[in-house]
Amino acid sequence: MARAPLPVALVQTHADGDADANLERTADLVAAAARNGAKLVVTQELFRSPYFCQVEDASLFALAESIPGPSTARLGAVAAEHGVVIVASLFEKRAPGLYHNTVAVLESDGSIAGTYRKMHIPDDPRFYEKFYFTPGDQGFTPIDTSVGRLGVLICWDQWFPEAARLMAMAGAELLIYPTAIGTWAGEMELRTIQHQAWQTLQRSHAIANGLHVLAINRVGVEDELTFWGGSFVATPDGQLLAEAGDTEQTVTATIDFEKTERMREGWPFFRDRRIDAYEDLLRRWRDGTDRD
Amino acid sequence: MARAPLPVALVQTHADGDADANLERTADLVAAAARNGAKLVVTQELFRSPYFCQVEDASLFALAESIPGPSTARLGAVAAEHGVVIVASLFEKRAPGLYHNTVAVLESDGSIAGTYRKMHIPDDPRFYEKFYFTPGDQGFTPIDTSVGRLGVLICWDQWFPEAARLMAMAGAELLIYPTAIGTWAGEMELRTIQHQAWQTLQRSHAIANGLHVLAINRVGVEDELTFWGGSFVATPDGQLLAEAGDTEQTVTATIDFEKTERMREGWPFFRDRRIDAYEDLLRRWRDGTDRD
Repeated sequence: MARAPLPVALVQTHADGDADANLERTADLVAAAARNGAKLVVTQELFRSPYFCQVEDASLFALAESIPGPSTARLGAVAAEHGVVIVASLFEKRAPGLYHNTVAVLESDGSIAGTYRKMHIPDDPRFYEKFYFTPGDQGFTPIDTSVGRLGVLICWDQWFPEAARLMAMAGAELLIYPTAIGTWAGEMELRTIQHQAWQTLQRSHAIANGLHVLAINRVGVEDELTFWGGSFVATPDGQLLAEAGDTEQTVTATIDFEKTERMREGWPFFRDRRIDAYEDLLRRWRDGTDRD
Repeated sequence: MARAPLPVALVQTHADGDADANLERTADLVAAAARNGAKLVVTQELFRSPYFCQVEDASLFALAESIPGPSTARLGAVAAEHGVVIVASLFEKRAPGLYHNTVAVLESDGSIAGTYRKMHIPDDPRFYEKFYFTPGDQGFTPIDTSVGRLGVLICWDQWFPEAARLMAMAGAELLIYPTAIGTWAGEMELRTIQHQAWQTLQRSHAIANGLHVLAINRVGVEDELTFWGGSFVATPDGQLLAEAGDTEQTVTATIDFEKTERMREGWPFFRDRRIDAYEDLLRRWRDGTDRD
Protein backbone atom coordinates (compact mmCIF):
# COMPACT_ATOMS: atom_id res chain seq x y z
CA MET A 1 0.00 0.00 0.00
CA ALA A 2 1.30 3.43 -0.89
CA ARG A 3 2.58 5.54 1.94
CA ALA A 4 0.28 8.48 2.84
CA PRO A 5 1.54 11.96 1.94
CA LEU A 6 2.97 13.95 4.83
CA PRO A 7 2.20 17.65 5.40
CA VAL A 8 5.28 19.44 6.79
CA ALA A 9 6.06 22.96 7.97
CA LEU A 10 9.34 24.84 8.41
CA VAL A 11 9.33 27.68 10.94
CA GLN A 12 11.56 30.45 9.57
CA THR A 13 11.73 33.27 12.10
CA HIS A 14 14.12 35.66 13.83
CA ALA A 15 15.67 35.41 17.27
CA ASP A 16 16.53 38.09 19.78
CA GLY A 17 18.15 38.22 23.20
CA ASP A 18 15.11 36.99 25.12
CA ALA A 19 15.40 33.18 25.14
CA ASP A 20 12.03 32.63 26.76
CA ALA A 21 10.32 34.85 24.21
CA ASN A 22 12.06 33.03 21.36
CA LEU A 23 10.89 29.70 22.76
CA GLU A 24 7.33 30.92 23.21
CA ARG A 25 7.17 32.47 19.74
CA THR A 26 8.53 29.30 18.18
CA ALA A 27 6.13 27.14 20.20
CA ASP A 28 3.24 29.32 19.01
CA LEU A 29 4.38 29.09 15.38
CA VAL A 30 4.73 25.32 15.65
CA ALA A 31 1.25 25.05 17.16
CA ALA A 32 -0.19 27.24 14.42
CA ALA A 33 1.45 25.09 11.75
CA ALA A 34 -0.01 21.97 13.37
CA ARG A 35 -3.46 23.53 13.48
CA ASN A 36 -3.05 24.20 9.76
CA GLY A 37 -2.45 20.51 9.17
CA ALA A 38 1.29 19.93 9.46
CA LYS A 39 2.25 16.56 10.95
CA LEU A 40 5.97 17.36 11.03
CA VAL A 41 7.29 20.80 12.02
CA VAL A 42 10.95 21.83 11.97
CA THR A 43 12.65 24.74 13.73
CA GLN A 44 15.68 26.66 12.53
CA GLU A 45 19.08 25.96 14.10
CA LEU A 46 19.46 27.18 17.71
CA PHE A 47 16.09 28.95 17.53
CA ARG A 48 16.09 29.79 21.23
CA SER A 49 18.85 32.39 20.98
CA PRO A 50 20.60 34.74 18.60
CA TYR A 51 23.43 33.09 16.71
CA PHE A 52 25.83 33.56 19.63
CA CYS A 53 28.85 31.97 17.91
CA GLN A 54 29.87 35.30 16.36
CA VAL A 55 32.10 35.73 19.42
CA GLU A 56 33.95 33.37 21.75
CA ASP A 57 32.58 34.15 25.20
CA ALA A 58 32.42 31.54 27.93
CA SER A 59 29.53 33.33 29.61
CA LEU A 60 27.36 32.25 26.67
CA PHE A 61 27.51 28.62 27.76
CA ALA A 62 24.73 29.74 30.12
CA LEU A 63 22.42 29.60 27.08
CA ALA A 64 22.74 25.82 26.98
CA GLU A 65 20.24 23.44 28.54
CA SER A 66 19.95 19.76 29.23
CA ILE A 67 18.01 17.33 27.05
CA PRO A 68 15.44 16.58 28.37
CA GLY A 69 15.09 20.12 29.67
CA PRO A 70 12.94 23.24 29.48
CA SER A 71 12.72 23.41 25.69
CA THR A 72 11.91 19.74 25.18
CA ALA A 73 9.29 20.04 27.94
CA ARG A 74 7.66 23.08 26.33
CA LEU A 75 7.75 21.70 22.79
CA GLY A 76 6.84 18.22 23.99
CA ALA A 77 3.63 19.71 25.36
CA VAL A 78 2.92 21.31 21.99
CA ALA A 79 3.67 18.01 20.24
CA ALA A 80 1.27 16.11 22.49
CA GLU A 81 -1.47 18.72 22.38
CA HIS A 82 -1.46 18.89 18.57
CA GLY A 83 -0.33 15.37 17.71
CA VAL A 84 2.65 16.66 15.73
CA VAL A 85 6.28 15.56 15.45
CA ILE A 86 8.70 18.44 16.11
CA VAL A 87 12.35 18.69 15.07
CA ALA A 88 13.86 21.11 17.59
CA SER A 89 17.38 22.52 17.32
CA LEU A 90 18.92 23.17 20.75
CA PHE A 91 22.15 24.11 22.52
CA GLU A 92 22.74 21.02 24.64
CA LYS A 93 24.55 21.02 27.97
CA ARG A 94 25.64 17.43 28.46
CA ALA A 95 27.97 18.07 31.41
CA PRO A 96 29.91 21.04 32.71
CA GLY A 97 32.43 21.81 29.99
CA LEU A 98 30.72 19.50 27.47
CA TYR A 99 28.23 21.04 25.06
CA HIS A 100 26.73 20.01 21.74
CA ASN A 101 24.74 21.53 18.90
CA THR A 102 21.89 19.06 19.09
CA VAL A 103 18.52 18.35 17.57
CA ALA A 104 15.87 16.74 19.76
CA VAL A 105 12.98 15.14 17.92
CA LEU A 106 9.71 15.25 19.85
CA GLU A 107 7.25 12.46 19.10
CA SER A 108 3.57 13.31 18.72
CA ASP A 109 2.89 12.07 22.25
CA GLY A 110 5.39 14.54 23.67
CA SER A 111 8.17 12.03 24.29
CA ILE A 112 11.68 12.40 22.90
CA ALA A 113 12.05 10.13 19.88
CA GLY A 114 15.77 10.70 19.67
CA THR A 115 18.58 13.20 19.34
CA TYR A 116 21.21 14.03 16.74
CA ARG A 117 24.40 15.84 17.70
CA LYS A 118 25.97 17.93 14.92
CA MET A 119 28.88 15.96 13.55
CA HIS A 120 30.71 18.55 11.40
CA ILE A 121 31.56 21.69 13.37
CA PRO A 122 32.60 24.86 11.52
CA ASP A 123 35.07 27.44 12.68
CA ASP A 124 35.33 30.50 10.52
CA PRO A 125 35.34 34.20 11.32
CA ARG A 126 31.99 34.96 13.03
CA PHE A 127 31.10 31.24 13.10
CA TYR A 128 33.27 30.15 16.04
CA GLU A 129 31.44 26.92 16.66
CA LYS A 130 34.47 24.81 17.56
CA PHE A 131 34.72 26.88 20.75
CA TYR A 132 31.20 25.98 21.81
CA PHE A 133 30.31 22.59 20.42
CA THR A 134 31.94 19.21 20.91
CA PRO A 135 31.59 17.19 17.69
CA GLY A 136 28.73 14.70 17.79
CA ASP A 137 29.36 11.17 18.99
CA GLN A 138 26.16 9.51 17.86
CA GLY A 139 27.20 9.04 14.23
CA PHE A 140 24.89 9.52 11.28
CA THR A 141 21.86 7.75 12.67
CA PRO A 142 18.31 8.56 11.54
CA ILE A 143 15.57 8.96 14.13
CA ASP A 144 12.45 6.81 13.90
CA THR A 145 9.15 8.61 14.43
CA SER A 146 5.48 8.05 13.73
CA VAL A 147 5.81 10.13 10.55
CA GLY A 148 8.85 8.33 9.22
CA ARG A 149 12.56 7.75 9.66
CA LEU A 150 14.12 11.20 9.80
CA GLY A 151 17.65 11.91 8.59
CA VAL A 152 18.36 14.98 10.70
CA LEU A 153 21.59 16.87 10.02
CA ILE A 154 22.56 20.38 11.07
CA CYS A 155 23.88 23.33 9.05
CA TRP A 156 27.61 22.74 8.36
CA ASP A 157 26.80 19.03 7.92
CA GLN A 158 25.07 19.97 4.68
CA TRP A 159 28.35 20.74 2.93
CA PHE A 160 29.39 17.08 3.30
CA PRO A 161 27.80 14.66 0.82
CA GLU A 162 29.07 11.84 3.04
CA ALA A 163 26.57 12.76 5.77
CA ALA A 164 23.56 12.77 3.47
CA ARG A 165 24.67 9.48 1.94
CA LEU A 166 25.08 7.75 5.30
CA MET A 167 21.65 8.89 6.43
CA ALA A 168 20.06 7.65 3.22
CA MET A 169 21.87 4.32 3.49
CA ALA A 170 20.49 3.94 7.02
CA GLY A 171 16.98 4.20 5.62
CA ALA A 172 16.24 7.86 6.21
CA GLU A 173 13.06 8.86 4.38
CA LEU A 174 13.69 12.61 4.61
CA LEU A 175 16.81 14.74 4.99
CA ILE A 176 16.28 17.67 7.37
CA TYR A 177 18.74 20.56 7.80
CA PRO A 178 18.08 23.16 10.52
CA THR A 179 20.48 25.95 9.64
CA ALA A 180 21.75 29.37 10.72
CA ILE A 181 23.57 30.79 7.75
CA GLY A 182 24.00 34.34 6.63
CA THR A 183 26.40 36.73 5.01
CA TRP A 184 28.91 38.89 6.83
CA ALA A 185 28.37 42.65 6.58
CA GLY A 186 31.82 43.04 5.04
CA GLU A 187 31.09 40.84 2.03
CA MET A 188 27.43 41.38 1.20
CA GLU A 189 28.30 41.25 -2.50
CA LEU A 190 28.74 37.50 -1.99
CA ARG A 191 25.27 36.96 -0.54
CA THR A 192 23.63 35.66 -3.71
CA ILE A 193 26.52 33.34 -4.56
CA GLN A 194 26.63 31.97 -1.02
CA HIS A 195 22.87 31.50 -0.92
CA GLN A 196 22.87 29.71 -4.27
CA ALA A 197 25.77 27.45 -3.27
CA TRP A 198 23.95 26.58 -0.03
CA GLN A 199 20.79 25.72 -1.92
CA THR A 200 22.55 23.90 -4.77
CA LEU A 201 24.40 21.53 -2.50
CA GLN A 202 21.27 20.61 -0.53
CA ARG A 203 19.31 20.05 -3.74
CA SER A 204 22.15 17.79 -4.85
CA HIS A 205 21.69 15.65 -1.73
CA ALA A 206 18.05 15.20 -2.73
CA ILE A 207 19.06 14.07 -6.21
CA ALA A 208 22.02 11.88 -5.27
CA ASN A 209 20.00 10.07 -2.62
CA GLY A 210 16.48 10.19 -4.03
CA LEU A 211 15.02 11.88 -0.96
CA HIS A 212 13.10 15.03 -0.13
CA VAL A 213 15.25 17.66 1.59
CA LEU A 214 13.91 20.14 4.14
CA ALA A 215 16.17 23.15 4.86
CA ILE A 216 15.20 25.65 7.56
CA ASN A 217 17.16 28.87 7.99
CA ARG A 218 16.69 31.91 10.22
CA VAL A 219 16.14 35.53 9.10
CA GLY A 220 17.17 38.88 10.44
CA VAL A 221 20.29 40.92 11.02
CA GLU A 222 22.26 39.90 14.12
CA ASP A 223 25.35 41.97 14.78
CA GLU A 224 27.55 41.44 11.67
CA LEU A 225 25.52 38.65 10.03
CA THR A 226 22.47 38.91 7.78
CA PHE A 227 20.62 35.60 7.78
CA TRP A 228 19.08 35.05 4.40
CA GLY A 229 16.14 32.79 5.21
CA GLY A 230 15.35 30.95 1.98
CA SER A 231 14.03 27.85 3.75
CA PHE A 232 12.90 25.31 1.18
CA VAL A 233 11.65 21.84 0.42
CA ALA A 234 13.24 20.00 -2.52
CA THR A 235 11.84 16.90 -4.16
CA PRO A 236 13.97 13.78 -4.84
CA ASP A 237 14.62 15.05 -8.37
CA GLY A 238 15.99 18.31 -6.98
CA GLN A 239 13.06 20.58 -7.83
CA LEU A 240 11.88 23.21 -5.34
CA LEU A 241 8.48 22.28 -3.91
CA ALA A 242 8.35 25.38 -1.69
CA GLU A 243 10.77 28.21 -0.93
CA ALA A 244 10.72 31.18 1.44
CA GLY A 245 12.13 34.63 0.88
CA ASP A 246 14.13 36.51 3.52
CA THR A 247 11.26 37.41 5.85
CA GLU A 248 9.55 35.52 8.66
CA GLN A 249 7.46 32.78 7.14
CA THR A 250 6.26 29.28 7.84
CA VAL A 251 6.94 27.21 4.72
CA THR A 252 4.50 24.38 4.08
CA ALA A 253 4.62 21.48 1.68
CA THR A 254 3.31 17.94 1.34
CA ILE A 255 5.81 15.11 1.04
CA ASP A 256 4.91 12.38 -1.44
CA PHE A 257 7.09 9.45 -0.41
CA GLU A 258 6.26 7.66 -3.66
CA LYS A 259 8.57 10.12 -5.38
CA THR A 260 11.51 8.41 -3.65
CA GLU A 261 10.44 5.05 -5.09
CA ARG A 262 10.06 6.46 -8.60
CA MET A 263 13.30 8.46 -8.51
CA ARG A 264 15.33 5.50 -7.32
CA GLU A 265 13.77 3.23 -9.94
CA GLY A 266 14.62 5.74 -12.65
CA TRP A 267 18.13 6.58 -11.53
CA PRO A 268 19.25 3.63 -9.36
CA PHE A 269 22.46 5.06 -7.95
CA PHE A 270 22.54 2.81 -4.89
CA ARG A 271 22.80 -0.21 -7.18
CA ASP A 272 26.03 1.06 -8.70
CA ARG A 273 28.15 2.56 -5.94
CA ARG A 274 31.77 1.30 -6.26
CA ILE A 275 32.18 0.34 -2.62
CA ASP A 276 35.22 -1.72 -3.59
CA ALA A 277 36.99 1.52 -4.57
CA TYR A 278 35.84 3.98 -1.90
CA GLU A 279 38.25 3.04 0.89
CA ASP A 280 40.22 6.28 0.67
CA LEU A 281 37.10 8.23 1.69
CA LEU A 282 38.20 7.27 5.20
CA ARG A 283 41.45 9.21 4.79
CA ARG A 284 42.06 12.91 5.31
CA TRP A 285 43.83 13.41 1.98
CA ARG A 286 45.21 11.01 -0.59
CA ASP A 287 48.85 12.06 -0.38
CA GLY A 288 50.30 9.08 1.44
CA THR A 289 51.50 11.14 4.41
CA ASP A 290 49.09 9.57 6.88
CA ARG A 291 50.70 6.15 6.73
CA ASP A 292 53.99 4.64 5.59
CA MET B 1 53.76 32.33 -7.45
CA ALA B 2 50.18 32.30 -8.58
CA ARG B 3 49.23 29.66 -11.09
CA ALA B 4 48.60 31.01 -14.61
CA PRO B 5 44.98 30.97 -15.83
CA LEU B 6 44.13 28.12 -18.20
CA PRO B 7 42.01 28.59 -21.35
CA VAL B 8 39.83 25.54 -21.94
CA ALA B 9 37.38 24.44 -24.62
CA LEU B 10 34.59 21.85 -24.61
CA VAL B 11 33.64 20.40 -27.99
CA GLN B 12 29.87 19.86 -28.02
CA THR B 13 28.84 18.28 -31.30
CA HIS B 14 26.69 15.55 -32.80
CA ALA B 15 27.70 12.08 -33.97
CA ASP B 16 26.44 9.99 -36.82
CA GLY B 17 27.10 6.51 -38.18
CA ASP B 18 30.39 7.38 -39.88
CA ALA B 19 33.07 6.87 -37.23
CA ASP B 20 35.87 8.23 -39.37
CA ALA B 21 33.90 11.38 -40.14
CA ASN B 22 33.10 11.85 -36.44
CA LEU B 23 36.78 11.52 -35.60
CA GLU B 24 37.83 13.97 -38.32
CA ARG B 25 35.16 16.52 -37.37
CA THR B 26 36.13 16.29 -33.72
CA ALA B 27 39.83 16.57 -34.58
CA ASP B 28 39.08 19.68 -36.64
CA LEU B 29 37.03 21.22 -33.83
CA VAL B 30 39.80 20.49 -31.33
CA ALA B 31 42.37 22.05 -33.63
CA ALA B 32 40.19 25.11 -34.14
CA ALA B 33 39.76 25.51 -30.38
CA ALA B 34 43.53 25.26 -29.94
CA ARG B 35 44.10 27.86 -32.65
CA ASN B 36 41.72 30.09 -30.69
CA GLY B 37 43.89 29.76 -27.60
CA ALA B 38 42.63 26.75 -25.68
CA LYS B 39 45.35 24.79 -23.87
CA LEU B 40 42.98 22.03 -22.75
CA VAL B 41 40.23 20.66 -25.00
CA VAL B 42 37.67 18.06 -23.97
CA THR B 43 35.48 15.84 -26.16
CA GLN B 44 32.03 14.55 -25.34
CA GLU B 45 31.61 10.93 -24.23
CA LEU B 46 32.17 8.33 -27.00
CA PHE B 47 32.41 11.10 -29.60
CA ARG B 48 33.48 8.70 -32.35
CA SER B 49 30.09 7.02 -32.66
CA PRO B 50 26.40 7.46 -32.03
CA TYR B 51 25.38 6.50 -28.51
CA PHE B 52 25.21 2.83 -29.45
CA CYS B 53 24.13 1.61 -25.99
CA GLN B 54 20.44 2.11 -26.83
CA VAL B 55 20.43 -1.53 -27.87
CA GLU B 56 22.35 -4.63 -26.83
CA ASP B 57 24.01 -5.86 -30.00
CA ALA B 58 27.30 -7.78 -29.95
CA SER B 59 28.14 -6.60 -33.45
CA LEU B 60 28.65 -3.12 -32.01
CA PHE B 61 31.77 -4.22 -30.17
CA ALA B 62 33.38 -3.66 -33.56
CA LEU B 63 33.23 0.06 -32.77
CA ALA B 64 35.84 -0.39 -30.04
CA GLU B 65 39.53 0.26 -30.54
CA SER B 66 42.72 -0.28 -28.63
CA ILE B 67 44.47 2.42 -26.63
CA PRO B 68 46.90 3.40 -28.09
CA GLY B 69 45.02 3.08 -31.36
CA PRO B 70 43.66 5.02 -34.31
CA SER B 71 41.91 7.73 -32.29
CA THR B 72 44.80 8.39 -29.93
CA ALA B 73 47.12 8.53 -32.96
CA ARG B 74 44.91 11.04 -34.77
CA LEU B 75 44.28 13.22 -31.74
CA GLY B 76 47.85 12.84 -30.54
CA ALA B 77 48.94 14.41 -33.82
CA VAL B 78 46.55 17.31 -33.21
CA ALA B 79 47.84 17.67 -29.66
CA ALA B 80 51.45 17.80 -30.81
CA GLU B 81 50.79 20.12 -33.76
CA HIS B 82 48.94 22.65 -31.61
CA GLY B 83 50.59 22.11 -28.24
CA VAL B 84 47.27 21.34 -26.56
CA VAL B 85 46.19 18.73 -24.00
CA ILE B 86 43.18 16.71 -25.19
CA VAL B 87 40.75 14.71 -23.06
CA ALA B 88 39.35 12.11 -25.47
CA SER B 89 36.48 9.78 -24.61
CA LEU B 90 36.81 6.41 -26.36
CA PHE B 91 35.36 2.90 -26.55
CA GLU B 92 38.33 0.81 -25.47
CA LYS B 93 38.97 -2.76 -26.59
CA ARG B 94 41.33 -4.17 -24.00
CA ALA B 95 41.06 -7.80 -25.09
CA PRO B 96 38.52 -9.90 -26.95
CA GLY B 97 35.45 -9.87 -24.70
CA LEU B 98 36.84 -7.11 -22.46
CA TYR B 99 35.81 -3.54 -23.22
CA HIS B 100 35.80 -0.30 -21.26
CA ASN B 101 34.33 3.18 -21.51
CA THR B 102 37.65 4.99 -21.29
CA VAL B 103 39.13 8.45 -21.48
CA ALA B 104 42.62 8.82 -22.91
CA VAL B 105 44.38 12.07 -22.10
CA LEU B 106 46.77 13.24 -24.82
CA GLU B 107 49.70 15.34 -23.65
CA SER B 108 50.69 18.40 -25.68
CA ASP B 109 53.56 16.44 -27.24
CA GLY B 110 51.14 13.83 -28.56
CA SER B 111 51.94 11.16 -25.99
CA ILE B 112 49.32 9.51 -23.82
CA ALA B 113 49.45 11.08 -20.36
CA GLY B 114 47.11 8.49 -18.88
CA THR B 115 43.74 6.83 -19.06
CA TYR B 116 40.64 6.67 -16.87
CA ARG B 117 38.19 3.80 -17.18
CA LYS B 118 34.61 4.66 -16.22
CA MET B 119 34.01 3.26 -12.75
CA HIS B 120 30.21 3.53 -12.38
CA ILE B 121 28.36 1.83 -15.23
CA PRO B 122 24.66 2.54 -15.77
CA ASP B 123 22.07 0.13 -17.03
CA ASP B 124 18.67 1.60 -17.68
CA PRO B 125 16.29 1.34 -20.62
CA ARG B 126 18.12 2.76 -23.66
CA PHE B 127 21.37 3.08 -21.64
CA TYR B 128 22.46 -0.57 -21.65
CA GLU B 129 26.06 0.13 -20.70
CA LYS B 130 26.56 -2.87 -18.43
CA PHE B 131 26.35 -5.03 -21.57
CA TYR B 132 29.21 -3.21 -23.23
CA PHE B 133 31.54 -1.87 -20.55
CA THR B 134 33.47 -3.67 -17.85
CA PRO B 135 33.67 -1.41 -14.78
CA GLY B 136 36.95 0.47 -14.47
CA ASP B 137 39.81 -1.10 -12.54
CA GLN B 138 42.11 1.93 -12.24
CA GLY B 139 40.31 3.52 -9.32
CA PHE B 140 39.71 7.23 -8.97
CA THR B 141 43.15 8.42 -10.01
CA PRO B 142 43.75 11.87 -11.53
CA ILE B 143 45.98 12.20 -14.57
CA ASP B 144 48.98 14.51 -14.45
CA THR B 145 49.50 16.74 -17.47
CA SER B 146 51.38 19.89 -18.36
CA VAL B 147 48.23 21.93 -17.72
CA GLY B 148 47.46 20.42 -14.34
CA ARG B 149 46.28 17.33 -12.53
CA LEU B 150 43.02 16.34 -14.18
CA GLY B 151 40.21 14.57 -12.31
CA VAL B 152 38.56 12.88 -15.27
CA LEU B 153 35.29 11.08 -14.65
CA ILE B 154 32.67 9.92 -17.15
CA CYS B 155 28.91 10.54 -17.32
CA TRP B 156 27.21 8.17 -14.80
CA ASP B 157 30.17 8.77 -12.44
CA GLN B 158 28.83 12.28 -11.96
CA TRP B 159 25.84 11.08 -9.92
CA PHE B 160 28.23 9.77 -7.24
CA PRO B 161 29.69 12.42 -4.89
CA GLU B 162 32.17 9.79 -3.75
CA ALA B 163 33.94 9.89 -7.11
CA ALA B 164 34.37 13.66 -7.15
CA ARG B 165 35.57 13.61 -3.55
CA LEU B 166 38.20 10.93 -4.19
CA MET B 167 39.54 12.82 -7.20
CA ALA B 168 39.75 16.04 -5.19
CA MET B 169 41.48 14.25 -2.32
CA ALA B 170 44.06 12.92 -4.77
CA GLY B 171 44.93 16.46 -5.73
CA ALA B 172 42.82 16.90 -8.87
CA GLU B 173 42.79 20.55 -9.92
CA LEU B 174 39.81 20.22 -12.26
CA LEU B 175 36.88 17.82 -12.47
CA ILE B 176 36.04 16.86 -16.05
CA TYR B 177 32.91 14.96 -17.10
CA PRO B 178 32.53 13.84 -20.73
CA THR B 179 28.89 12.85 -20.97
CA ALA B 180 26.22 11.46 -23.27
CA ILE B 181 22.91 12.19 -21.63
CA GLY B 182 19.54 12.88 -23.15
CA THR B 183 15.87 12.37 -22.68
CA TRP B 184 13.86 9.46 -24.05
CA ALA B 185 11.23 10.33 -26.63
CA GLY B 186 8.54 8.79 -24.40
CA GLU B 187 9.15 11.19 -21.51
CA MET B 188 10.15 14.49 -23.07
CA GLU B 189 8.13 16.30 -20.39
CA LEU B 190 10.95 15.34 -17.99
CA ARG B 191 13.69 16.91 -20.09
CA THR B 192 14.02 20.14 -18.10
CA ILE B 193 13.95 18.39 -14.74
CA GLN B 194 16.54 15.85 -15.87
CA HIS B 195 18.77 18.53 -17.35
CA GLN B 196 18.55 20.63 -14.17
CA ALA B 197 19.29 17.64 -11.94
CA TRP B 198 22.30 16.76 -14.08
CA GLN B 199 23.62 20.30 -13.87
CA THR B 200 22.81 20.76 -10.16
CA LEU B 201 24.71 17.68 -9.07
CA GLN B 202 27.81 18.61 -11.06
CA ARG B 203 27.71 22.17 -9.70
CA SER B 204 27.51 20.62 -6.24
CA HIS B 205 30.74 18.74 -6.86
CA ALA B 206 32.41 22.07 -7.65
CA ILE B 207 31.15 23.55 -4.38
CA ALA B 208 31.76 20.55 -2.11
CA ASN B 209 35.31 20.15 -3.40
CA GLY B 210 36.29 23.72 -4.27
CA LEU B 211 37.15 22.89 -7.87
CA HIS B 212 36.12 24.00 -11.34
CA VAL B 213 33.91 21.46 -13.11
CA LEU B 214 33.89 20.95 -16.90
CA ALA B 215 30.89 19.03 -18.27
CA ILE B 216 30.74 18.14 -21.97
CA ASN B 217 27.59 16.64 -23.46
CA ARG B 218 26.56 15.75 -27.01
CA VAL B 219 23.64 17.17 -29.00
CA GLY B 220 21.25 15.78 -31.55
CA VAL B 221 18.49 13.23 -31.82
CA GLU B 222 19.71 9.62 -32.08
CA ASP B 223 16.95 7.05 -32.41
CA GLU B 224 14.87 7.45 -29.22
CA LEU B 225 17.16 9.82 -27.33
CA THR B 226 17.43 13.61 -27.57
CA PHE B 227 20.79 14.73 -26.21
CA TRP B 228 20.42 18.10 -24.56
CA GLY B 229 23.88 19.56 -24.89
CA GLY B 230 24.17 22.13 -22.12
CA SER B 231 27.92 21.71 -21.72
CA PHE B 232 29.20 24.06 -19.03
CA VAL B 233 32.04 25.23 -16.85
CA ALA B 234 31.27 25.85 -13.17
CA THR B 235 33.51 27.76 -10.78
CA PRO B 236 34.47 26.40 -7.33
CA ASP B 237 31.59 28.35 -5.79
CA GLY B 238 29.13 26.66 -8.15
CA GLN B 239 28.49 29.58 -10.50
CA LEU B 240 28.26 29.00 -14.26
CA LEU B 241 31.26 30.50 -16.05
CA ALA B 242 30.03 29.36 -19.48
CA GLU B 243 27.10 27.26 -20.69
CA ALA B 244 25.99 25.96 -24.09
CA GLY B 245 22.48 25.53 -25.41
CA ASP B 246 21.33 22.45 -27.30
CA THR B 247 23.11 23.11 -30.58
CA GLU B 248 26.64 22.36 -31.77
CA GLN B 249 29.02 24.71 -30.01
CA THR B 250 32.53 24.85 -28.64
CA VAL B 251 32.30 26.27 -25.13
CA THR B 252 35.30 28.28 -24.00
CA ALA B 253 36.30 29.57 -20.58
CA THR B 254 39.41 30.50 -18.64
CA ILE B 255 40.14 28.63 -15.43
CA ASP B 256 41.48 30.74 -12.56
CA PHE B 257 43.08 28.21 -10.23
CA GLU B 258 43.33 30.85 -7.50
CA LYS B 259 39.58 30.46 -7.04
CA THR B 260 40.21 27.01 -5.58
CA GLU B 261 42.56 28.51 -3.00
CA ARG B 262 40.09 31.24 -2.03
CA MET B 263 37.08 28.91 -1.94
CA ARG B 264 38.83 26.37 0.27
CA GLU B 265 40.06 29.12 2.62
CA GLY B 266 36.56 30.49 2.93
CA TRP B 267 34.74 27.20 3.32
CA PRO B 268 37.38 24.69 4.52
CA PHE B 269 35.39 21.49 4.23
CA PHE B 270 38.41 19.22 3.95
CA ARG B 271 39.48 20.31 7.43
CA ASP B 272 36.27 19.03 8.97
CA ARG B 273 35.40 15.71 7.32
CA ARG B 274 34.43 13.15 9.99
CA ILE B 275 36.60 10.37 8.67
CA ASP B 276 36.19 8.59 12.00
CA ALA B 277 32.50 8.16 11.23
CA TYR B 278 32.44 7.44 7.49
CA GLU B 279 33.25 3.73 7.58
CA ASP B 280 29.78 2.67 6.47
CA LEU B 281 30.32 4.45 3.14
CA LEU B 282 32.11 1.23 2.23
CA ARG B 283 28.90 -0.77 2.67
CA ARG B 284 26.10 -1.29 0.17
CA TRP B 285 23.32 -0.34 2.61
CA ARG B 286 23.24 0.17 6.36
CA ASP B 287 20.81 -2.63 7.21
CA GLY B 288 23.16 -5.13 8.78
CA THR B 289 22.41 -7.83 6.20
CA ASP B 290 25.86 -7.77 4.62
CA ARG B 291 27.68 -9.29 7.59
CA ASP B 292 27.08 -11.54 10.61
